[in-house]
Amino acid sequence: MESAMPEPAAPEVPYEPTGRTVPTRSRERASYDRALVHSILDEGYVCHLGFIRDGAPVVLPTLYARIGERLYIHGSTGSRPLRMAGEQDPGLAVCLTVTHVDGLVLARSAFHHSINYRSVVVHGTAHQVIDAEERSTVLDALVDHVVPGRSQDSRPANAKELASTSVLRLDLDEVSAKVRTGPPNDEPEDLSLPHWTGVVPLTRGHGTPIPAGDLDPAVTLPDYLKAL
Amino acid sequence: MESAMPEPAAPEVPYEPTGRTVPTRSRERASYDRALVHSILDEGYVCHLGFIRDGAPVVLPTLYARIGERLYIHGSTGSRPLRMAGEQDPGLAVCLTVTHVDGLVLARSAFHHSINYRSVVVHGTAHQVIDAEERSTVLDALVDHVVPGRSQDSRPANAKELASTSVLRLDLDEVSAKVRTGPPNDEPEDLSLPHWTGVVPLTRGHGTPIPAGDLDPAVTLPDYLKAL
Repeated sequence: MESAMPEPAAPEVPYEPTGRTVPTRSRERASYDRALVHSILDEGYVCHLGFIRDGAPVVLPTLYARIGERLYIHGSTGSRPLRMAGEQDPGLAVCLTVTHVDGLVLARSAFHHSINYRSVVVHGTAHQVIDAEERSTVLDALVDHVVPGRSQDSRPANAKELASTSVLRLDLDEVSAKVRTGPPNDEPEDLSLPHWTGVVPLTRGHGTPIPAGDLDPAVTLPDYLKAL
Repeated sequence: MESAMPEPAAPEVPYEPTGRTVPTRSRERASYDRALVHSILDEGYVCHLGFIRDGAPVVLPTLYARIGERLYIHGSTGSRPLRMAGEQDPGLAVCLTVTHVDGLVLARSAFHHSINYRSVVVHGTAHQVIDAEERSTVLDALVDHVVPGRSQDSRPANAKELASTSVLRLDLDEVSAKVRTGPPNDEPEDLSLPHWTGVVPLTRGHGTPIPAGDLDPAVTLPDYLKAL
């Protein structure tokens, strides 16, 4: 059912489009480029995981990490999607989406207002990860996805914590990216209208780290946080 | 099936919890407070809309706007969820989620690493909006959700644009917020470990507006953009 080591990536081969990864609209914005997909996934903190519960769709935000061509999420063994993936053979049908909002696109016409964004949508089946070595690698990757280098500067999970943590794996197989960049697309007959038009970029950054109240003042800010 | 005017909000009455809005985990983070839900929704640009297509979950990012106790999304009449909502009576079962990632929570133990976030999850049925007056109000609200005041400084949709635009309505009825704030929750036995611990805030802002290349230099930056 699974192997301990992630499969090697094949960066030069795009993902194969399928019926559900080819959009019905704005096809020129869709991409199956592996490096683009990886970069969008690696930049996000939270994905939106969709699954079906009692016949209805559910979308929950959750942390994730990528190792090669596999995505991983984790959670309590009591959480619903993780429990459902364990109960259901062969796994839980999911759709996992990551979106970055890069800018506000202000056209002269209300109709052509838009958002500059980059998103990745992954369709597939999530499986419980059982293998102890893969689980350990994944838990490190989840911490390092939040702050690169952090897993080596924290206490690893103990037996009790490991027992209460479920890990799900989703292979990057049926995948597409969608990207909008650049200025508004106004109609030719609107070009002389008196409205300001252009893009307002949205920025994201890291604020000054806030030490926990119980942090020993002798512990200084580590380099991997200064680098953020 | 629908009325032209949004229903009045009842800000003092919380949303009624239901089986699917009471989380199985971290119940102390859940809230049904109407003002909190509204504030989280109003701050976002993009929601993640989940629905079922051919028996599988789909999660797509899309713009939205709130008017009172109703959420609205829009799109091309050719887009899949909007077409499906029109084809299906009584509407399309959806789950609409908005998430803000506010900070990286670095605990001494890998296990207690987390994210500070605010999210809203809405379960319900999306319906096509047919009423011309409601559609017009919604299209203004969608533009003003991106930049407050902008709808009055752009050309309204013409008949052709209106005919190619679908609008969906989702009542705020089965709704919950989930919020994590504050420092890490380390185990008492970990407090003497030598690892830095605290929160790295994530910031979001607006960059300097970039005028479109074809903008008449005589058109100056409007006040509603200076205010961002």
